[in-house]
Amino acid sequence: MGKIEDVIGSIEPLDQEAMKSAMQRQDQLTKPQSSLGILEDISIKVAGIKKDGLPKTERKVIITMAADHGVTEEGVSAYPKEVTAQMVYNFLGGGAGINVISKVTNARIVVVDMGVATELEDNPALINRKIGYGTDNMAKGHSMSREDAIKSIITGIDIFEAEFERGIDIVGTGDMGIGNTTASSAIASVITGEDVRKVTGKGTGIDDNALDGKVKIIEGAIEINRPDSKDPIDVLSKVGGFEIGGLAGVILAASALRVPVVIDGFISGAAALIATELAPISKDYIIAAHSSVEIGHRVMLDHMDLKPILDLNLRLGEGTGAALAMDIVEASTRILCEMATFSEAGVSDKTE
Amino acid sequence: MGKIEDVIGSIEPLDQEAMKSAMQRQDQLTKPQSSLGILEDISIKVAGIKKDGLPKTERKVIITMAADHGVTEEGVSAYPKEVTAQMVYNFLGGGAGINVISKVTNARIVVVDMGVATELEDNPALINRKIGYGTDNMAKGHSMSREDAIKSIITGIDIFEAEFERGIDIVGTGDMGIGNTTASSAIASVITGEDVRKVTGKGTGIDDNALDGKVKIIEGAIEINRPDSKDPIDVLSKVGGFEIGGLAGVILAASALRVPVVIDGFISGAAALIATELAPISKDYIIAAHSSVEIGHRVMLDHMDLKPILDLNLRLGEGTGAALAMDIVEASTRILCEMATFSEAGVSDKTE
Repeated sequence: MGKIEDVIGSIEPLDQEAMKSAMQRQDQLTKPQSSLGILEDISIKVAGIKKDGLPKTERKVIITMAADHGVTEEGVSAYPKEVTAQMVYNFLGGGAGINVISKVTNARIVVVDMGVATELEDNPALINRKIGYGTDNMAKGHSMSREDAIKSIITGIDIFEAEFERGIDIVGTGDMGIGNTTASSAIASVITGEDVRKVTGKGTGIDDNALDGKVKIIEGAIEINRPDSKDPIDVLSKVGGFEIGGLAGVILAASALRVPVVIDGFISGAAALIATELAPISKDYIIAAHSSVEIGHRVMLDHMDLKPILDLNLRLGEGTGAALAMDIVEASTRILCEMATFSEAGVSDKTE
Repeated sequence: MGKIEDVIGSIEPLDQEAMKSAMQRQDQLTKPQSSLGILEDISIKVAGIKKDGLPKTERKVIITMAADHGVTEEGVSAYPKEVTAQMVYNFLGGGAGINVISKVTNARIVVVDMGVATELEDNPALINRKIGYGTDNMAKGHSMSREDAIKSIITGIDIFEAEFERGIDIVGTGDMGIGNTTASSAIASVITGEDVRKVTGKGTGIDDNALDGKVKIIEGAIEINRPDSKDPIDVLSKVGGFEIGGLAGVILAASALRVPVVIDGFISGAAALIATELAPISKDYIIAAHSSVEIGHRVMLDHMDLKPILDLNLRLGEGTGAALAMDIVEASTRILCEMATFSEAGVSDKTE
């Protein structure tokens, strides 16, 4: 826990000077004031995050973490759990959604095995930081020990710190794990206090009948495990997942190192709930990429007071929404840095 | 008018075979069905537009048309009309919002003088197709002659056809013209039948008092000119603008040549109203980039049954929203073309 506390302790508030400077520059650029709307707001937030009135977001990295979930034995997913490992190989082979979108938006992908249930073949593009071979079935007991919950967060911190050394201006979070919407709904319900049914959706595509079953499994898991909503590590250990803990660590480390974190959808949202309950100040470092189809996602974002950039009916995960939204963030910062001012361009300002 | 009729006559319906093929492929890609939401829908539409089950949208072009508006002498804008010419120079110098966003999303910009009120200096990057030195003041009579309205549309067709020869996979529309939200609101009111007040916003940023004046000017212009809502050329000539006619021509020509047209905001929306009233089938070729802050924009999009991709509180114009949205469109088609199928990647499909 020491490492986590150190990281949390080193997260500083947004830099007001840089934000003020960015705001003033936005108003001098050759456009009506505020006419680039949310792009202007994002650029100002990123200036505050990076303590730089002219922030860069060129070097984009998506960290996609994979793990398995014991609760899949309850039949909560439309896909067999083997798909987690198969999709990791798909990421490494370049055939998945996140690979294609990252090519379009020019982001580098970092794939991490946080706890896939099978031994994966060695691959130079795969970071093996397995905490275990999938979590235990939360319907029957804790998903993982408290030690493993802490270890998963610290692993996420380590992963981010290593990527930071390689050079990174902005990070996006992504996930892969059959069964992980079940864990995420459980976390959402415990932390936000909302009914399980209101934060539980169809995940990869179960039918209404299976959805009823999924809700009951989650309700049962919360009942037998009694996670303490005031202790995010307890919540993570009892109903969470290794990739969710890892992504929470990424969010905390990025906040400490003043790097904007673009969170993807529902699973990244669960990780952000853990991170922001541990360190409420880390909310300021988070940019919500999009509004997911998963019904609990809005509840999560509202709880963290975050507004999503995109609304494209996405529910794939992997970091796909984050990779798309990063391009909007890059447009926002390049507007701030590269547009001409009224005086530079010899354009008349508003007549008042 | 002959040329316009020829172009309209050559617009064909979307290709159902290509759409079916794209739809089937989307369902074989390594993701839960429909999990990429609107991205999947866009890719299928683009397949139908391009008559190609694996469509490309790499070569992106934004056509930004500039013109002045005589109605500015009524004080409808927050900026002096000189800004139109100054901003054209800013486009050519690379300092405007559209320049920066196009760099991020890798689009080529084509800048056209459709009727700026002053003589612009020669520049190899500027296409001079001036129909006149700004329109006449619609508060006192027709904005332009019927001949000039036709000429502006044909000019747009010519411009697009020339760019098509150079190579173009997808086009975006953009505008510059102090006073052109006034013309666009007038067009929106006449064509959709909505009250002027409900389709008139603050443009570049006038105050509430000036907004009242703007509404009255538009109401007066419609009253004295009596544009015939069933005759889009009549509407364009009486309350339109040269750049609006030009962009309507771009939309028609792109539809005829099976190139998707990403329309920007309010002024492009007015051009799309003219184009789709002339050729309702051209709606199928249009992709709405975003939902503008201008209150009349939603009314326009609803009238054309178009759903915007982005909602970022933009109101700059120039093609900025279109350039951003083109990246989403490119992601959608590359997903379709480049993602691995379940069988290619050896991933198990849904268990049913």
